[in-house]
Amino acid sequence: MQLNEQYRTLSQSYLFSTIAREVDAFRAANPQADLIRMGIGDVTLPLPAVVVDAFAAAVREQGEAAHFHGYGPEQGYDFLREAIRAHYAGFGVDLPADDIFVSDGAKSDIGNILDLFAPGGNTVLIPDPVYPVYCDTNHMAGNRVVFLDANRENGFLPLPDEGQDADLIYLCSPNNPTGAVYSRDQLALWVAYARKRGAILLFDAAYEAFLQDDTLPHSIFEIPGARECAIEFCSFSKTAGFTGTRCGYTVVPHELERDGLRLREMWLRRQTTKFNGVSYPVQRAAAAVFSPEGMAACRENIAVYHGNATVICDALRSCGVWHVGGENSPYVWMKCPGEGSSWDFFRLLLSRAAVVGTPGSGFGKNGEGYFRLTAFGDPEATRRAMARMVDLIGKI
Amino acid sequence: MQLNEQYRTLSQSYLFSTIAREVDAFRAANPQADLIRMGIGDVTLPLPAVVVDAFAAAVREQGEAAHFHGYGPEQGYDFLREAIRAHYAGFGVDLPADDIFVSDGAKSDIGNILDLFAPGGNTVLIPDPVYPVYCDTNHMAGNRVVFLDANRENGFLPLPDEGQDADLIYLCSPNNPTGAVYSRDQLALWVAYARKRGAILLFDAAYEAFLQDDTLPHSIFEIPGARECAIEFCSFSKTAGFTGTRCGYTVVPHELERDGLRLREMWLRRQTTKFNGVSYPVQRAAAAVFSPEGMAACRENIAVYHGNATVICDALRSCGVWHVGGENSPYVWMKCPGEGSSWDFFRLLLSRAAVVGTPGSGFGKNGEGYFRLTAFGDPEATRRAMARMVDLIGKI
Repeated sequence: MQLNEQYRTLSQSYLFSTIAREVDAFRAANPQADLIRMGIGDVTLPLPAVVVDAFAAAVREQGEAAHFHGYGPEQGYDFLREAIRAHYAGFGVDLPADDIFVSDGAKSDIGNILDLFAPGGNTVLIPDPVYPVYCDTNHMAGNRVVFLDANRENGFLPLPDEGQDADLIYLCSPNNPTGAVYSRDQLALWVAYARKRGAILLFDAAYEAFLQDDTLPHSIFEIPGARECAIEFCSFSKTAGFTGTRCGYTVVPHELERDGLRLREMWLRRQTTKFNGVSYPVQRAAAAVFSPEGMAACRENIAVYHGNATVICDALRSCGVWHVGGENSPYVWMKCPGEGSSWDFFRLLLSRAAVVGTPGSGFGKNGEGYFRLTAFGDPEATRRAMARMVDLIGKI
Repeated sequence: MQLNEQYRTLSQSYLFSTIAREVDAFRAANPQADLIRMGIGDVTLPLPAVVVDAFAAAVREQGEAAHFHGYGPEQGYDFLREAIRAHYAGFGVDLPADDIFVSDGAKSDIGNILDLFAPGGNTVLIPDPVYPVYCDTNHMAGNRVVFLDANRENGFLPLPDEGQDADLIYLCSPNNPTGAVYSRDQLALWVAYARKRGAILLFDAAYEAFLQDDTLPHSIFEIPGARECAIEFCSFSKTAGFTGTRCGYTVVPHELERDGLRLREMWLRRQTTKFNGVSYPVQRAAAAVFSPEGMAACRENIAVYHGNATVICDALRSCGVWHVGGENSPYVWMKCPGEGSSWDFFRLLLSRAAVVGTPGSGFGKNGEGYFRLTAFGDPEATRRAMARMVDLIGKI
């Protein structure tokens, strides 16, 4: 019996459990405090009515012999893949529906995609700070991870270093945790670098629906040449509030080939062997997101979150705190005021303003001295929280 | 860039696509024929009303701010894990809810469990004939597969060979494709063998709800000592018609430990890193399966399928055809009449009786000369199909 020894050295992420413990202690000591949470990456607004109606109608079908759906098509129902195809066409990307794979969420696919690569066989570039799933899945696979420094100097948008070898490269734009967004020209540099080396870009587009600036790319496939060097992951979680409803999709272009193997065929084989599709009613709900009424409702919800982000950014600007993100993202990444660490500011903000955020150091070494705020909360609470933070920063 | 080279040598399964092509050709040539499908492993009866109601109510919650559910608990909601725990208690197995992991289906978990073991590092025993997922996932992982001969002599229930080394052992009971069921004493032999060698049993209980004989075990954990050597996979697919609704669960006992690593902790880490839980409304639907009304409705549906199995077995008995399964399973595994191959009988049955079944050779070398019939069809159609088959066999 040989276990996967990589699990033995996988560092436990204590970030959110430590936050929870400190918040619990604060509540116990201050039961009357108006605690405001700006640390969570989860949505709070309910599903749009048109999505709920489509979801519920499909549930009723599952109770009727004439309309019952058993095992579905392997890559997802045509009605949903066509809707996703049309969504991409909306920002000028022409994808065949065959390149689209519906799944239960981007996190699953981002983890499982490593099945296509030799365990321990590749050099993987991962930005720091970063969504921890990229690192942990590569650690589990025994791959060699090289961190890309994201920092204030490069606007938390690292660019290729021609001297650096790479086989797989993770990019997330709009970024979690920083909210920074790559421009078209910057992504073109990554595509050129990947093509030159035969590397593959793993592009996480989970936050694309938050883009407001029309010049910024929603998809890596807006960049010419990306189909031969990129896989894209996306999700309904943040676009349409599906964090608890679960649906995502992955695009593996049929042009993507290495050593005579087509990655699309490999992923199809992986998914048909180790996955059995997404719930039919959930796929109906997801398709309704792309109806005109569904898109309008999702845009309204995102406008609420953008409103929160504006409140956050305006407040930080008013007290001269450096920050990035917010405008095209639900995340704002701020420099901690004063000289303290991320955790120092976490504790100060909690104890003196009853506001919870996320210490940037929890996302990697370059996150030290930074702090993440999220725009997914209640608008009134966000205003109260930021007023208290401005007041607190004025006293530091 | 090193791809997973195992994909290069993964044999394509042409079984169901070949069947589909031959059936299409038959239909084109015989458009008036009353074609009856007894080859599919998919359910046909709709979800029980109590399950649909719970599912739809939870969908409505997702549309209300006060009841909206975002990311759920990592192992599944307590209400569902408690219901599963109570289901196990019903056949005398006392499991802590912490050992139960809710997932989107048994197929995903059966595939993903190999993440916990060193790629290429283990000897894996797999029965032949077999559900192809066991073989394909181990081929992808580069493991050494040793087939266990299941045949008429051992009633398609292979037992341990003390001279055979093993690290992982797949058992499926009631079996797909044969419908054969291990007795308690037979499973006790497997538990003893696994414990002696430090091997782990991967027990697929997807068809446990079809057991009618009270002396047969529903779970490997009914066998003393199994908690230290087994992982169990189960599903709502066949119990409650969830093939298109998607929900399953895996039990990893906290007692299961190898080389100082607890498999339950490893699986928790795997699932929290590469999976994000099951849709909240689907979990509510699954929990309703275990309500008294839900269980009664599921038993009614299964009784319809059992009725079909009885029709199949009675017909085969009437013409002296050897078979196994059916009584405690939705599958009947029959010896092909005459001296022909599985595919010969497939073509004879299709061309002369307009009935579709599955050639046993598609499930492994020991399936040659056998044929799988499923009891998931319409009762009237099943009767017509078997009358035609009896008539055909009388003429061979």
